[in-house]
Formats: sequence, structure tokens, C-alpha cells
Amino acid sequence: MDKTLIVSKKVKLNDPVLIEGLPGIGLVGKLAADHMIKELKAEKFAELYSPHFPHQVLMLKKGIIRMLKNKFYYWKNPKKGGRDIVILVGDVQAVTPEAQFEVCGAILDFYQKLGGKFIFTLGGYGVGRVVEKPRVFGSATRMEVVTSLKKHGILFGEASGSIIGAAGMLLGLGKLRGIKGVCLMGETHGGYVDAKSAQSVLEVLSRILEVKIDLSKLEIRAKESEKFMKRMEKETEKQKQIQEGGFAGKELSYIR
Amino acid sequence: MDKTLIVSKKVKLNDPVLIEGLPGIGLVGKLAADHMIKELKAEKFAELYSPHFPHQVLMLKKGIIRMLKNKFYYWKNPKKGGRDIVILVGDVQAVTPEAQFEVCGAILDFYQKLGGKFIFTLGGYGVGRVVEKPRVFGSATRMEVVTSLKKHGILFGEASGSIIGAAGMLLGLGKLRGIKGVCLMGETHGGYVDAKSAQSVLEVLSRILEVKIDLSKLEIRAKESEKFMKRMEKETEKQKQIQEGGFAGKELSYIR
Amino acid sequence: MDKTLIVSKKVKLNDPVLIEGLPGIGLVGKLAADHMIKELKAEKFAELYSPHFPHQVLMLKKGIIRMLKNKFYYWKNPKKGGRDIVILVGDVQAVTPEAQFEVCGAILDFYQKLGGKFIFTLGGYGVGRVVEKPRVFGSATRMEVVTSLKKHGILFGEASGSIIGAAGMLLGLGKLRGIKGVCLMGETHGGYVDAKSAQSVLEVLSRILEVKIDLSKLEIRAKESEKFMKRMEKETEKQKQIQEGGFAGKELSYIR
Amino acid sequence: MDKTLIVSKKVKLNDPVLIEGLPGIGLVGKLAADHMIKELKAEKFAELYSPHFPHQVLMLKKGIIRMLKNKFYYWKNPKKGGRDIVILVGDVQAVTPEAQFEVCGAILDFYQKLGGKFIFTLGGYGVGRVVEKPRVFGSATRMEVVTSLKKHGILFGEASGSIIGAAGMLLGLGKLRGIKGVCLMGETHGGYVDAKSAQSVLEVLSRILEVKIDLSKLEIRAKESEKFMKRMEKETEKQKQIQEGGFAGKELSYIR
Repeated sequence: MDKTLIVSKKVKLNDPVLIEGLPGIGLVGKLAADHMIKELKAEKFAELYSPHFPHQVLMLKKGIIRMLKNKFYYWKNPKKGGRDIVILVGDVQAVTPEAQFEVCGAILDFYQKLGGKFIFTLGGYGVGRVVEKPRVFGSATRMEVVTSLKKHGILFGEASGSIIGAAGMLLGLGKLRGIKGVCLMGETHGGYVDAKSAQSVLEVLSRILEVKIDLSKLEIRAKESEKFMKRMEKETEKQKQIQEGGFAGKELSYIR
Repeated sequence: MDKTLIVSKKVKLNDPVLIEGLPGIGLVGKLAADHMIKELKAEKFAELYSPHFPHQVLMLKKGIIRMLKNKFYYWKNPKKGGRDIVILVGDVQAVTPEAQFEVCGAILDFYQKLGGKFIFTLGGYGVGRVVEKPRVFGSATRMEVVTSLKKHGILFGEASGSIIGAAGMLLGLGKLRGIKGVCLMGETHGGYVDAKSAQSVLEVLSRILEVKIDLSKLEIRAKESEKFMKRMEKETEKQKQIQEGGFAGKELSYIR
Repeated sequence: MDKTLIVSKKVKLNDPVLIEGLPGIGLVGKLAADHMIKELKAEKFAELYSPHFPHQVLMLKKGIIRMLKNKFYYWKNPKKGGRDIVILVGDVQAVTPEAQFEVCGAILDFYQKLGGKFIFTLGGYGVGRVVEKPRVFGSATRMEVVTSLKKHGILFGEASGSIIGAAGMLLGLGKLRGIKGVCLMGETHGGYVDAKSAQSVLEVLSRILEVKIDLSKLEIRAKESEKFMKRMEKETEKQKQIQEGGFAGKELSYIR
Repeated sequence: MDKTLIVSKKVKLNDPVLIEGLPGIGLVGKLAADHMIKELKAEKFAELYSPHFPHQVLMLKKGIIRMLKNKFYYWKNPKKGGRDIVILVGDVQAVTPEAQFEVCGAILDFYQKLGGKFIFTLGGYGVGRVVEKPRVFGSATRMEVVTSLKKHGILFGEASGSIIGAAGMLLGLGKLRGIKGVCLMGETHGGYVDAKSAQSVLEVLSRILEVKIDLSKLEIRAKESEKFMKRMEKETEKQKQIQEGGFAGKELSYIR
């Protein structure tokens, strides 16, 4: 296995939208997507493994290991003819351009096979200060998306700079394949895990999708997320040290 | 998509020359090529996307995103039997040898399919001091090119050192395919965006191609270019920090 | 040759387990596996070379060179119907995620062709202090492995963090192929080569495999291993300097 | 073109030995091989280009550019039935393991097609002090090579450490293909270009090959080599800075 790999079971979905919430600034996207999965009781149906993710496995409390991965969940819309939802979450993102292209390409291939045509990517928009009532900024693949979504309280054209990583590349590469999409960014400080910002994003998203999402447990989940990401940070830091240490020497302090 | 990709519409061109003006020292080549596109009202007909370009999308003012890319424009020569022109410009260049080989290879494949046989690459030649009347240095793929172009006021054999990036590799790799070419380098300070140097290059180029190019708006465009490149610099700097920060930790401050 | 390559002679093995002991923390895994090879008089039957290992050859005392590599040994179980053993040891491990995926993938391909279905990876678990009687921690691919091995004095679920490198990736990638396995980690300081920790691991392993292994020469071998790894460290450090020095300049001090 | 490429004209050679002299410590190997080419009036018949060499072209004094490359020369042995010689020299070597594997693999493929079965790689062996009468150390692929070459005044088994780069990898990878060979290392300081050390190596080599090589101009050529390598060092240093500077920003000072 030397390529990004998606292991999935078959599901049949109706015109599914894709919601991406991988780790990023303030963990806003990850928090929102993870929360949505739990509240909607979405079901896991695919896992993505990549040679571009860290080469380490996590030791779980029950005595078994697991690889780092991304995961796909689906939710069947109970409304007749309503669009189903696919949610993409995970431990990590690839960190080089080449790796992001490959992994995002694999995600888009998979999503297209499910019949998907519209992507929401979720993230934070760092403003460097604490925000009482976080606004939600948007940037879309086409003007028609801007026009149709503006009414939901998304600020288009007010965020500047660039969107780095999967939240940007899924939209950019998707556009080349004729897939539409939008990045929803919750205003956030940037320096800490921000449940409030995730809440703003989820409020907008539930209005667009016409899906109810209970937000009462969001704060508690933010705490868990923070803890997990600190652990990931610590573990991947070790790996980075090994890589920099080179081939043999520093590997002496390799496993722990 | 895991390879450099060129999306184009079909055009029929007559023995087209290729003019490359990607970002480089003093933005001389980029300025000259961008200006030429606008003055000649050249038409865009192809876009190049590469996994070796930064994995980020730019947020535009109107609320939509776009990927980083290179672009091809063409200009039909109104003179009967006159050579048409293809101009290559863009946001970025690849930064590793392997990536430059791949991207330049894709450009040459594309250009050869258009029937092209001669390449002008444009750039600056840094001399570390302000230059009142910038000279234009040249370095060609073969002596016969030197002989035929000398009369246009290009100084051959007076620049030393090497030409790094697409301006050099398109010529070097092109030569292996039997494509001739020359790099035209405007003398420049090296530390700032230099419209005067671009003007010198354009004067030489318009003499060679026997095409009139109005140079009156060059200064204004230089200002715009400078602004854009400062933005690019800022955005790609962020990405570099993420890459160095490694897999999980620093990604917390990922999107903005 | 631009891929990881395994050169082997044919052997027929009965349901062989794989034991991995590549360099890692405290050299615990390497020591244990190397010792096992010598005590069991296991026979070398395959060598693995990879473009991801350092591009240097070692000069041996008798005047010949050898490449850096990993090696596979086998041991035929004298008991009728008893499982045979394959032991994987070597000079180095790959240091990037992409390289680990490729090399571990090649190892798993090879092992599966031998009919293998269970992997033991051996390593150290650094605790940052000298340990009188090193415990053995375990982390398995599945709960059923935990259940069946617990009785042998392995502590499951008490180690936390992650397992970096081949000891982790062989299990993680193996699991995706339906191969079961466990990582046995000897408690160790982390800062020096630890024969005692290797002894603990071997005691557990010999109980599980029902194979007797004389441990009396383990201390002596630890000394030899330490010496070799110090040499490797020194040599690969040179290579790292060249890589950082770039293409031409520093290569002047290239061979020694 | 995204692979290492060898452009050659057809030659028919009799059981040719390969002599490698790419840049390395004290430029000993390069000096010796370059000198041999000139004294034997060997003829160039192939050029090697690689995506792993720096992405820059050199500007020559006559006004044309050339890519960085390796070159193959051949020399027909005037003695009836005598072995012909192929000499490999060049501007640079690849600097990563993956790149060295690919480039050395391409060299070996090419050499095998010429019917080659024995490789001499030439280099320096740094001892950190000025040496009056440099000895020649050897390290071979097999004991039979040691046995047959010892009589020519080569010290086998007295050099320790490793041989980094093409001088080592051609032998190591060649051995896997059944090609025999030896690395001849001239004792040298390590800090400067060493014509005396190259002389020692050439004396040994001419005894082995029974070919006379006039050594009177070696000193002069050492001076030229030193000058060229200083230039290469300067140019590739610039490229390294660009690579580290990242995608857009530092590219402003890109060509010169």
C-alpha cells in the first residue's frame, strides 16, 4: 500500500452534500463536524489512510492500537427527497502541497462516486482577539453559490487572505471537476479551541440544510477535542524530531 | 488529480513563440509579460494547476475563491503569415528541482502541441545597485540564436552565473527537445519591483517580434504587481510555517 | 532500481510468525531480535534494500563494502506442526511517513507470500528513569489478541502515547490486510542501550512461542550493538550534513 | 520529462570498465577522471540529465546556456582485445537517498547495456591533515576483487566509515546486479582541492588498467576545477536559499 486508501462499505445516498471538518484554526471545523455527527447519530461508513499521515499508531486505553486516519459518516435525511449528508472528520491533515493534492483528490473521487455535487468546508477565521458573537464568513466556488447562500447570514467578500489545507483545496480541486461548494468560517481568536465559533457555524449550516442540531453539549465536546489535539500535537512532535534527527542516531529514542 | 494539469480550450495558432514571465527577481519578467497581455489584449486560453504549488486558495473580494495557477494567453498576429504569440504568466513557480522539471515538462508538452518552436523567457539580472538605463542581457540555447538576435541591442555573454527556475529550465529542457530560445534579462537592482527594467525588456522584445507595445501604463501596473506579490508572500509564508510546524500541533492556527 | 527491493531465496515455512526488531528506543527491539537470531541459529534468507535508506555504503574491515539494509531470518520449529519463525532486523528504518508506508508495505507483501498471519513487533517503552525489573507493555491490533496474550505477563492498556515507525506501522498496515499482531515494549530508561529490557521482552516472547532462548550472552551483545549504532549514528550524521549543505558546495567534503 | 534521462550516441565497446569521478571530497575523483579524459582524448558519447539536479542553467561566456549534467566519455583501447574504458564525470551529484538510487540506477542500466561488468569509483579519503605522499585506500564489492587488486599498492581494510554518494551507491547497487567494482580513495586533507591525491589515485589506476597517463598538467587542471566548483557552490547556494524561502516571497530575488 503506497497510496491514499479509502476503505468503505457500500451505502446508497440521495444527492449527498459533503461537510468537511478536519483539524484547523481554533478547531472550529472539527468541533462543528464532530458535534454534528454525534447529534445526528450519523453512521461511519468509510475510513481514509494515507502515506502522507504521520507514521505512528496511537495506543488506546483498552490495549489496542489504531492508525491515524480520516473518517466519513453519513446521515440519511428522513424528509422525503431530502438531501443526505456525508461528514468528513479526522485526526490530521496532510502538510505538503503534493500530499494535500493527493489526499483531496482521493476524497473527491470517493465523493463523486457517491453522486455528490456540493461541498461545505468548515473552519475558523482568526482575528486575533476574543469575539463575543462570532460572525460567519463565507467564500464560495462560484457567484451563484454566493447569491443563493447570502440570505442565511453568511458574510461573503469580507474575509481576506487565503484558505490553507483541505478546507481550501477540496473547493479548489472540486471546482475543476464541476463540484460547487463554500467554505464557512467562524470568526475566532485563533489561539484556543473555540466552541462559540463552532456554534455560529453550526447555526448557519443547520439553517441552510434545514436540519435541527442540538447545541447544548458543544462546550463539553470542545473540552474533549482540545485534550485529544494536545495529545496528537505531542505525539507528532516526537515524530518530527525523529525526522529531523535523521536516519539512525536519534532513532534510539524512537518508541515511547 | 495528482499531476500537473493544463485545462485549455482549443486554439489554432501559426508558428507561435512562447513568452514566459513568471515571478522572479524584481518581478521584471512578470511585469513585462503581464503588461504585454493587457496591451495586446491577448486572450486567456489555458490554465495550469500543479500539486507543486502551495495548497491554498485565495479569497477574492467578490466572495469567491480561486486556486494558485499559471495561465496561458494567446495573441493572433494581424499581419498575414506573422507568428502568433503565447504568453505564460502566473502567481508562483515550483520551488524544488523535481517540481520544476515536472511543471516545465508539462508546459513544453503543451507548447509543442501548439506547434511551438521558439521560447523567450523574461527575467531580471540583479546587479545590486539602482540602474538609470537598464541594459538587456541575453543567454540563448544555441549560437545561431545569439547571432540572429545580437542586432536588437541584447548583450550576450556579459551576464554570468546561472538562471534559476522556469526562465532557465524551459530553455534547458526545451533544448533537449529541439526547441530554440533565449532568456532576456533586464538589468535591475534586485531589491524592488522594477518597471524600468521591464520596459527595457519590452522594448527589445517588441523590436524582435515587430509588435508595437504601448509602455505608458507600465509604472501603474508595477504598483499593482508589487501589491499582489506582497500578499502572495504573506500567504505562502503562513503555509511554510504550517509545514515546518508538522502534522497536528501548529495546524490549530491553520486557516485565516 | 527505484523501489524497495527484497532479494530472497525460497523457503517453505509453516504458518510463520513475524518478529520485528529494527532500531528504536534503547535498542530494545533490535537487541532482542538479534539475540534470538543467534541463539536459535536462525538462517538468513532475504535482504531488503530501499531508496529510503541512507545513500551510503559501509566499509568493512576485510576491505569490502556493504549497503545498509534490513534482513529476514527464518527458524524452523522442530516440534511437529509447530509454527516457524521469521525475524526481521536491520541497520536502519525509513524516517518519513511516505517511506515507512512503502517499506512496511513491501515487508507485509513479502510476509504474506510466506503465508504469515501474526506479527510481533518489539521495542522499548521509555520512562525516563532506570528500571530495576523492566515490565513488558503490550498494544495489540484487536481485543482477541489482548485476551489471548494477557496471561503471559504483558501489561495491556497501561502504556500511552503512540508507537512510531515500523513497530507501529507494521501492525497498523497489517491490520488493514487482516493480519493480527502485537507490539511488546520493554520498560526502559530511553537514554541508553538496555539489555535488561530486551531480556524482559525475550522472556515474555519465549513463553508465548514456547521456544527456549538462552539469555546469558545478552549483555555482551548489547555492548556490540551499542558500538555499531554509534558508528551508524556518526555516518548518517555526515550524510545529513551533505543533504543540508545542498547540491555542490558541501559535497567537497563528501567521502571519507 | 520527469525522470533521469540519458541522451547518447551509439558506440560499440569491448568489455568496458566504468570509471566514476563525480564531485566529492577534495575533488579527488573528479580531478582524476577529468584529467584522464583529457590525456586519453576520450570522446563524449552520452549526457545524463536528472530532475534531481538543481533547477538552474549556467550562462556560458559565449552567450549560451547549458544545463547541469553528468557526462560519459569512452576510450577505445588500442591494444588488441584490450578492455575499453567509459568515464563518468559531471557538475553535481544528487543529494537525497531517493535521488541517488534513481540516478545510480539509470547509470547502471546504461552501463549494463554497454556490456559493462566492472566499476572503479574514485574519491578522496579525508584525514584532516596535509599528506605528503597520499596513500590509496580501497574498498571492493567482493573479496576476489581485493585479492586481485592488492598487488597494485592499494590498502584494503584500512579505511573505515562509509562511502557516501555515487562512489558508494554505484558499487552497492551494482553488486546487487552482479557487477563487481572497487572504490579507490586517495588520502587527502579534506579541506581543499587536492591534485596530489588525484595523482596517487591515477598512478594506481594506470597500473591496474595498463594505460599510460601523463600527469604533468594535473596541477593546472586542479586550479581550473577549483574555480569551477566554487562557482557551482555559489550558484547552488542561491537555489537553496530560494527553496528555503518558500513559494513566492523570496523568489523576488530569483534570477541573476
